[in-house]
Amino acid sequence: MRSVETTQEGRRATSTTSVNIDEVRDGRVRTRADQVATEEPMEIRVLAAGRRVTAAVTMRTPGSDFELAAGFLFGEGLVHTAADISGISYCVDRDLDEAQLFNIVNAKLRTGLVPDLRSLERHFYTSSACGVCGKASLDSLDLRGCRAPAPGPQVAAEVVASLPEALRRAQGIFESTGGLHAAGLFTSQGELIASREDVGRHNAVDKLVGWALLEDRLPLDNRILMVSGRSSYEIMQKALTAGIPMVCAVSAPSSLAVDVARRFDMSLIGFLRGARFNVYAGPERIAPVS
Amino acid sequence: MRSVETTQEGRRATSTTSVNIDEVRDGRVRTRADQVATEEPMEIRVLAAGRRVTAAVTMRTPGSDFELAAGFLFGEGLVHTAADISGISYCVDRDLDEAQLFNIVNAKLRTGLVPDLRSLERHFYTSSACGVCGKASLDSLDLRGCRAPAPGPQVAAEVVASLPEALRRAQGIFESTGGLHAAGLFTSQGELIASREDVGRHNAVDKLVGWALLEDRLPLDNRILMVSGRSSYEIMQKALTAGIPMVCAVSAPSSLAVDVARRFDMSLIGFLRGARFNVYAGPERIAPVS
Repeated sequence: MRSVETTQEGRRATSTTSVNIDEVRDGRVRTRADQVATEEPMEIRVLAAGRRVTAAVTMRTPGSDFELAAGFLFGEGLVHTAADISGISYCVDRDLDEAQLFNIVNAKLRTGLVPDLRSLERHFYTSSACGVCGKASLDSLDLRGCRAPAPGPQVAAEVVASLPEALRRAQGIFESTGGLHAAGLFTSQGELIASREDVGRHNAVDKLVGWALLEDRLPLDNRILMVSGRSSYEIMQKALTAGIPMVCAVSAPSSLAVDVARRFDMSLIGFLRGARFNVYAGPERIAPVS
Repeated sequence: MRSVETTQEGRRATSTTSVNIDEVRDGRVRTRADQVATEEPMEIRVLAAGRRVTAAVTMRTPGSDFELAAGFLFGEGLVHTAADISGISYCVDRDLDEAQLFNIVNAKLRTGLVPDLRSLERHFYTSSACGVCGKASLDSLDLRGCRAPAPGPQVAAEVVASLPEALRRAQGIFESTGGLHAAGLFTSQGELIASREDVGRHNAVDKLVGWALLEDRLPLDNRILMVSGRSSYEIMQKALTAGIPMVCAVSAPSSLAVDVARRFDMSLIGFLRGARFNVYAGPERIAPVS
């Protein structure tokens, strides 16, 4: 993807918004300015084979919008490499008012790529033939061609323990608003490669994967994904699709997150709070404390 | 809705799932059993005017499934009163295997009710005429007929301060898994009326509103909604639709959550940790400490 329009100049929406609040502390009230995480809808439009289709409207925190679009399309299986996208740009229709101008992202697919857009409808209109249960959800990942990531090198327990603090240091907005989910990508030595934030935890991961896609860094084997919240089916699905063998989360996993990890030989760590953490799947990737 | 099939006998999936994990504490590893919150897909089917349509497939924690279906349909504007639903039941097709049997919920609408099912598609296929920006998102609530809830009585600051602990006490599963969002409904004196839990925070609120719908308790004026996580546009929209004038959250609000509250004269409290909390909108509903 060489000709991508990535300029974000003129961008109006920012990732934080200032509001006046009443702060109550033991009955005393003080009015002060506060920062909250910005939440704005973003529409992702796909231009392919002469058609323009709305792929999604998602509530997101402005910033890394093109990465979000790219990561979403990758996660949905509509694109597989950076070359599948010939351009990403904001919609600049003259009849749009300014507030909307940076909330619509057009992703133009390469000539000849005609994705099955019906897959986008599966969230709402599933075929009952697929089945609706945890096992069917796992089977659907198999059907999409997901395979277990390469084993990768072992990760030292000390490295695992260091990830939350490293992610927190990278989380600029979180510090000021307390309202954003973060996702960070690390090497097996614990070096931070990239991090992204969003009010939606899935968006934070989509931004990170979209960044990797646009930078031609997929698959992310040998990498660790660290998320600030919980791990769910959807988080694990996004990690798996990007080839990430290890997912760490500050909070709890769901049952289906554990199932995805075990089915696809991924490592899943939860309740990661420094030197205390739980390994829900793939303990063989953790090297004992030296 | 008198003839609702509410029996959940034979229910297989439970709200927690047992898994064996490796617990790491300062380098020492101990294998033990752990409980994680169950995550399973659930399909909500609407039967209306002789047609059967999949309204949604959502990842949820089993339990209060009929309430979840009712609350979802109410939130989407497809039903408005309990009488709009003539029956809710699990799908019991003989050709479904057991694992799927309790993951499909059929909601049969009353004869003569033909909802506009196209509204279900709006998450994916919006008309660009609606606009895609925060203001347009607020306008859409106006268009759906949302009005400011009645002012209701003032709530003492001490009552606000007591809500997190009261919700925590009611949160049975959270205690064991740490993995569930909770939503609680309180009187203005701080008495807990009902609480629901789910891996998805929107589901927890849908279950609560669905319960109120099926019990003919809507609108929930004079009530307080307390959620264990953050507040977003969608949480505020669900509260507004149910007529709830005050929303309290343990964590941060998004900018659009604040905007919805201010536009519709709701009260919004964030970072509620006992006697310390921030009032983002509607401070007039909080009575000073006596």
